[in-house]
Amino acid sequence: MNAHTRAVSPVARALFDKAIAGDIAAISRLLSSLEADDGLACSLCCLSWIHRRPGTVGFTGPPGAGKSSLVSATIRRLRELGATIAVLAVDPSSPVSGGSILGDRFRMREHTLDPGVYIRSMSSRGASGGLARATADCAAFLSGIYDWVLLESVGVGQGEVDVRTTVDTTVVVLNPGTGDVVQSLKAGILEIADIFVVNKADREGAMVLQADLESLIASVGSRGDWTRPVIPTIATEGFGIKGMVDVLYERRMFIEKPEVVEEHRRTQLTSASAAIFKDELRSSLDEFLLSPEWRKLASALTSPYEGAGEILRWLRSVQPH
Amino acid sequence: MNAHTRAVSPVARALFDKAIAGDIAAISRLLSSLEADDGLACSLCCLSWIHRRPGTVGFTGPPGAGKSSLVSATIRRLRELGATIAVLAVDPSSPVSGGSILGDRFRMREHTLDPGVYIRSMSSRGASGGLARATADCAAFLSGIYDWVLLESVGVGQGEVDVRTTVDTTVVVLNPGTGDVVQSLKAGILEIADIFVVNKADREGAMVLQADLESLIASVGSRGDWTRPVIPTIATEGFGIKGMVDVLYERRMFIEKPEVVEEHRRTQLTSASAAIFKDELRSSLDEFLLSPEWRKLASALTSPYEGAGEILRWLRSVQPH
Repeated sequence: MNAHTRAVSPVARALFDKAIAGDIAAISRLLSSLEADDGLACSLCCLSWIHRRPGTVGFTGPPGAGKSSLVSATIRRLRELGATIAVLAVDPSSPVSGGSILGDRFRMREHTLDPGVYIRSMSSRGASGGLARATADCAAFLSGIYDWVLLESVGVGQGEVDVRTTVDTTVVVLNPGTGDVVQSLKAGILEIADIFVVNKADREGAMVLQADLESLIASVGSRGDWTRPVIPTIATEGFGIKGMVDVLYERRMFIEKPEVVEEHRRTQLTSASAAIFKDELRSSLDEFLLSPEWRKLASALTSPYEGAGEILRWLRSVQPH
Repeated sequence: MNAHTRAVSPVARALFDKAIAGDIAAISRLLSSLEADDGLACSLCCLSWIHRRPGTVGFTGPPGAGKSSLVSATIRRLRELGATIAVLAVDPSSPVSGGSILGDRFRMREHTLDPGVYIRSMSSRGASGGLARATADCAAFLSGIYDWVLLESVGVGQGEVDVRTTVDTTVVVLNPGTGDVVQSLKAGILEIADIFVVNKADREGAMVLQADLESLIASVGSRGDWTRPVIPTIATEGFGIKGMVDVLYERRMFIEKPEVVEEHRRTQLTSASAAIFKDELRSSLDEFLLSPEWRKLASALTSPYEGAGEILRWLRSVQPH
């Protein structure tokens, strides 16, 4: 396991400075480094955390809820307001890289020629150290360069890609009449939402869904001093988008309050630290359990409790490098 | 973290001996201990691994595939052959305990008065140390008492309850015409199956599904020397069940071969050891990350890589007790 306490490399620093100044080639190069978790990644991650701004927004919700349309409408509105935007489209199920996924997302096409919008797809292929971790690192990095970083993740409760604890704001997108609330409750996503969007709000059941969500929120209580709003939208027609973007700015101001910002940062650092630790532990452990050393140990074990003890003993003997 | 290297407690030993002799009260008492991960659990787990037999069978597959019917038909056939059976019905989504779930599973009712069949539901409620671990421990324990232990788990790829690596045989139940194969491929369950059952084989598409599975198996290759069969059944009518139960016995004989048994046991011990270790680590880590010590550390962190290093440092300083 690597304890990553080295100093920031000068190469990373130089590229990072270029990226911060808006050099697209440098940005792409560094995102690839973060994805591949290569030699520059650690330095980059340190720099990213120094420069990160609270503009990362994750959009999550069941497949078909209209996340792509909502992200696209959000981009349009943010551009009207003069903001720059990076978009990370995350597809855990696809081993295929960037281009082809984006090709399918035709709603994004209108933005691809806009220099104020940077779009990148992330799939499991490029991400050697776990997609969730790579995505969180890339989002933190981009937040220092673009005013807003929008993450669109595919599916809910799909395990691997849980960037919700590392973004600043989580938007949960649901649809009327689909039983989404029950499913979402099961997947535990109601607890992590900062903003609820009832998309396709012209469909039957929109009022019921909104009321259900509001009573759920009332029963769970607010998170800190942030009261979670429920916003009806029809993303394909642009309905409700202005209001939603206003809420994104409100949320950002809320996070930047002196009494909130420190706790917010600590929470993010804690979950990101734990994610990196677990990631590194997982690969070291997998390696150890395939080693001749473990094979020999395992043959002599009488119970898995004893085995768990042996694993702990091994871990304590590993020197961080 | 607890390295669990203590000797077997005399209380556990006495109760275990009663349970092995078929005392139902002792069996229930010890299953509750394993579920609650209480003071007896560790000793019990050691004893269970000494006495365990290769008769644990996990039934998995999408909701509605007919797992309950298949388990019930399997019980009926095994009873005809004079075998005794324990059934663990695992419901990760339900916080409700045993009784009420079983009440719904009316197909199980015919077996509840049969002294050769022991049925128990497991839900997250009773299982303090993780349902997957509790289920694996209970299955190992029951395998020393009953000829067969059948595990029926709800859903596929639901994360938490992955008992597949700790059972001796995994039966994957699929249905024709449902696109189950594609879903299963995504969830990675094809890799872990030992036996495929195409249930509801009178439906359209059964031949296609069977052919698809067989070509998939051919392309992936056999697991060791075990060639994975694809068995068509209509569980509600008993069709195909005799053949499936024959295959369960074949599989058992295969596992008991001298050249297979040691590797099989080592694989199981490894995955069970890793599960216990991760479980204990998770709770220790969660506790640490909520401590004032971590709070102080986190305030001074400049990056999550540094945080991951701090977590490793903490872990190395923890004394097993």
